[in-house]
Amino acid sequence: MTRDQSPAPPRRADAERNRGKILAAARSAFADPQAEVSMAEVSRRAGVGMATLYRNFPGRRELLEALYIGEVNAVCEAAETLETFRALGAETPGAVFVAWLHRFFAFITSKHPVGIELLKQSGGSAPVMGESRRRVTAAGRPLFRAAQRTREVREDLTLEQILDMIVAIASIRGEPEYLKPILQAALDGLRSPEG
Amino acid sequence: MTRDQSPAPPRRADAERNRGKILAAARSAFADPQAEVSMAEVSRRAGVGMATLYRNFPGRRELLEALYIGEVNAVCEAAETLETFRALGAETPGAVFVAWLHRFFAFITSKHPVGIELLKQSGGSAPVMGESRRRVTAAGRPLFRAAQRTREVREDLTLEQILDMIVAIASIRGEPEYLKPILQAALDGLRSPEG
Repeated sequence: MTRDQSPAPPRRADAERNRGKILAAARSAFADPQAEVSMAEVSRRAGVGMATLYRNFPGRRELLEALYIGEVNAVCEAAETLETFRALGAETPGAVFVAWLHRFFAFITSKHPVGIELLKQSGGSAPVMGESRRRVTAAGRPLFRAAQRTREVREDLTLEQILDMIVAIASIRGEPEYLKPILQAALDGLRSPEG
Repeated sequence: MTRDQSPAPPRRADAERNRGKILAAARSAFADPQAEVSMAEVSRRAGVGMATLYRNFPGRRELLEALYIGEVNAVCEAAETLETFRALGAETPGAVFVAWLHRFFAFITSKHPVGIELLKQSGGSAPVMGESRRRVTAAGRPLFRAAQRTREVREDLTLEQILDMIVAIASIRGEPEYLKPILQAALDGLRSPEG
């Protein structure tokens, strides 16, 4: 069979491109503290019509979810490609784990109000949140185990408890400079007494 | 002038007694996870009529605030009467400070859903919350300073940041056994690297 030469693949490529433009525009709109992020605003920023926007995302919630899943993917990929952290100077499994926790923190703080908005909207029980939580936890598990094996992380906390602690700190109101030493203290507290 | 023999003082004493009964009943109702805490329920538990209840507290919010202020008073008094902590084995200023932080944590966790409910209702900006925050912070300040002087507490965090951290951890969903090691890790992280 020869390769299908119908116009479908280019149309799919266009659709993908539009979807990507919408997501990028929505991401930058959410990152802008001054912006009121309405569907109309996203359509304007993306340079696509409302019909195209709604064909891709039937509502604001679907758009939020897609943005959120994109961020979750990035956090999970970061756990799988440790080279980034190693390049940043994380030389031991404990340092890699802590670097990934910083990445996770960045994902849920003000840089990513999408996550916070979804977290608040759902109260932690929306399917996308539960699923994302499972994925992030699974992605971080090998890093956590490695750091425990080298006795760099205390053993009386589960990974779930550590991630909950970070989510809680990320939800403190305040500028990044206010939150940063709080996160640092909490992460220092994860060190094994033997480490 | 002789002492006023009018019936006002006994009436005030009765009123005080009723107020105390209402607050105790409301406190135990809020501590009961099964209870739906309505004004009617509080009136029933306190054994006072609805008229008496509403004369003391025009609404649920006023009742919540009074309960909350009572708890705040207890936390502040704990900071002022260090004997309790010393009796529990806290021998250094750092240990006393951490013991007081545990007391503060107990005040805002599930034992005291009043605080959490008010915190949520107000978003941290209700006058009673701001005022309480100032009082608790002021009460804890001498303990914090003493622990810093002995270099038992790190110097890159303010007391405000430490209290925010504890409030954040107290807001994590979970049973006390789930939260306890998270709090412990965070408190361990407060130790000065030199300590």
